[in-house]
Amino acid sequence: MKAEIITIGDELLIGQVIDTNSAWMAEVLNLSGIKVAQITSISDSREHILAALKEAETHADIILMTGGLGPTRDDITKTTLCEYFNTKLVFNQEAFDNVDRIFRNRGYSLTLLNRAQADIPGNCTPLLNENGTAPGMWFEENGKIYASMPGVPFEMKGIMTTHILPRLQKLTSTVIVHRTILTHGVGESFLAAKIEAWETALPGYIKLAYLPQPCIVRLRLTGSGPDREQLEATINTCVDELYQLISEHIFGEGDDTLEQVTGDLLKASGYTMATAESCTGGYIAHLITSIPGSSAYFKGSVVAYSNDIKENVLGVSHRTISKHGAVSEETVFEMAAGIIRQFKVSCAIAVSGIAGPEGGTNDKPVGTTWICVLTPKGAETRKFTFGEHRGRNIRRAALAAIDMLRKQLK
Amino acid sequence: MKAEIITIGDELLIGQVIDTNSAWMAEVLNLSGIKVAQITSISDSREHILAALKEAETHADIILMTGGLGPTRDDITKTTLCEYFNTKLVFNQEAFDNVDRIFRNRGYSLTLLNRAQADIPGNCTPLLNENGTAPGMWFEENGKIYASMPGVPFEMKGIMTTHILPRLQKLTSTVIVHRTILTHGVGESFLAAKIEAWETALPGYIKLAYLPQPCIVRLRLTGSGPDREQLEATINTCVDELYQLISEHIFGEGDDTLEQVTGDLLKASGYTMATAESCTGGYIAHLITSIPGSSAYFKGSVVAYSNDIKENVLGVSHRTISKHGAVSEETVFEMAAGIIRQFKVSCAIAVSGIAGPEGGTNDKPVGTTWICVLTPKGAETRKFTFGEHRGRNIRRAALAAIDMLRKQLK
Repeated sequence: MKAEIITIGDELLIGQVIDTNSAWMAEVLNLSGIKVAQITSISDSREHILAALKEAETHADIILMTGGLGPTRDDITKTTLCEYFNTKLVFNQEAFDNVDRIFRNRGYSLTLLNRAQADIPGNCTPLLNENGTAPGMWFEENGKIYASMPGVPFEMKGIMTTHILPRLQKLTSTVIVHRTILTHGVGESFLAAKIEAWETALPGYIKLAYLPQPCIVRLRLTGSGPDREQLEATINTCVDELYQLISEHIFGEGDDTLEQVTGDLLKASGYTMATAESCTGGYIAHLITSIPGSSAYFKGSVVAYSNDIKENVLGVSHRTISKHGAVSEETVFEMAAGIIRQFKVSCAIAVSGIAGPEGGTNDKPVGTTWICVLTPKGAETRKFTFGEHRGRNIRRAALAAIDMLRKQLK
Repeated sequence: MKAEIITIGDELLIGQVIDTNSAWMAEVLNLSGIKVAQITSISDSREHILAALKEAETHADIILMTGGLGPTRDDITKTTLCEYFNTKLVFNQEAFDNVDRIFRNRGYSLTLLNRAQADIPGNCTPLLNENGTAPGMWFEENGKIYASMPGVPFEMKGIMTTHILPRLQKLTSTVIVHRTILTHGVGESFLAAKIEAWETALPGYIKLAYLPQPCIVRLRLTGSGPDREQLEATINTCVDELYQLISEHIFGEGDDTLEQVTGDLLKASGYTMATAESCTGGYIAHLITSIPGSSAYFKGSVVAYSNDIKENVLGVSHRTISKHGAVSEETVFEMAAGIIRQFKVSCAIAVSGIAGPEGGTNDKPVGTTWICVLTPKGAETRKFTFGEHRGRNIRRAALAAIDMLRKQLK
């Protein structure tokens, strides 16, 4: 069974709103074994809705629509659905009771516009919308299933979860299983070369996708078939083999982040940490503290953007900076040692580099970055040469530093 | 002229990636006077790409595609475009030089897979991708324009801005002028009420859009007509009137950011600054140092996530914390005074709050945040009550703090 998602709304086509609904719907549909054939965003226009419905029927058995169900004049999905199905709007008591309930709860009195939200196409089953006044609608016509929901994300999610997914699950037999492996610090093509033989040997019903982001490549395995247990077992075996090939690059799976995986390792070890940051300007501390509960292991940070802070607050020697420069192995080591001493922590990350766009030299071009990680398990200092873009250099340096810490703690 | 956006990638149809590219492209196309007729997300499948192209030709004169240009086997956009246009892949020296340049910069050696990224359909004009190895491609066929770009957002944006928008702008005759005014710290409906009479009096060919983001509302005026000079003059008059109504909420225009506007004020004043951060965890320092040249005024930061760092490094008195708590007017004032003393700067921001999800009390619920700003021009301490979401609380606190500094420096 295949689905198509149609999102309706002028705001999508002028870029005023990012369509987050489709990704959520696509995810829950896939997890229910229903492939999404296409996602189409169209305007609040009668002709466009009619054309999109007709076109969607050529790709899909299930057509899910969001948007255009508000009480105002530009919301025309409902009347257009009547035209498409050759029916009329009829008053629905159940839908009206819900509108009435919501208005009572909010202490408002009903307007005629809101009363009209209880009128629905004669051929549909209304789906209770607990979070809003526009009911969801379920149609079965021409051997296809159609559903229409409001575009407000939490209203749509409520209707999908409570009504549409349970109804659809009864109709499917194919099972879909995914597992996504996360790697850091190596490019897509290098990974591809390293796992080529493994990839070629994958069974035909298991597909591999490379999903690259800056610094991170996600490898997603998707299997489809009739038997969940067998699929999961096969995918698990494939993933075990993958770990043997590239384990040094894998930091997690699914929705894991480097900062959360590293935070978990810190929590498990009982260690505390701090950062001494120059070019990353507090971004490492920000990533680490974006994780709820990070105060259990993160004590703080010194952002030493100027050399006198490196010297006076972190205790880097003046001689080290004048002899080797602020961007050097010696300086980041003394920064890391200094923050451990000052903040009384067991682990430290220190970073100094040239984020750009200014400040590069022939010897040390923009992107040159030294990172030092000290933990009770060891010490490591590494030089990286990132690119020319300031924002990306900051992000790459931060992720590289956190990954060095993770590897030492593992 | 109408455009259709086709985003290609299985990751979109399983909901693993939210399609942010389309909204960005739709916005810049609309701002260039090109309407977007439809946005279609499809799978990495030959048949689907061919069908979507054929279908798009019925809606649009310009068909913009993203995705499926990586070096790996699941990326098939290029070969499918060859089939659609009945041509072959040919080696392109210019595209190869770019791949080679990027690999040299990163210090890596080329693989065969990367070399293949320089092969492009024989009928296209390559568009230099400064940020990645896959070139953009421009086709003119059957009286339509087609362009294909990588799906990585910053690569797509670079190619759109540098190549595609300038080429498209040459093809349109209507002039479109916009000016976008940026406000911080007030909600959309509050602004709407304050400028209602002004908005009603706008001439018909000038449209106002409210573009809300967390903490920031952008007010975009768009005028269209035949005469650029006259349009610009009218819009400038409207904006002057707007400043008279809401100047205290306006921090900039266009692509300005609070951190950059504030940095400019610091630079002009000759002041230096530092931050003392608790709940924001380095995020303020990160925002400030995201601006190139910020080392001219930013000396550094102490992230004092634990109370002993507040005491031992920033010199907040033990008595203050035990009497008033870490989240209090007294503590943030001492944090700000401490960082000025320690870092020898003229201006300081200090923040302490409860970002959540844990740590709230009846007295101080999650979201409670104290901010202190000290400059040679004055001192201000304010309490904010943000919401329940950790990430948004951190961002709202950081922007509120930077805006307090900006207002003091103005």
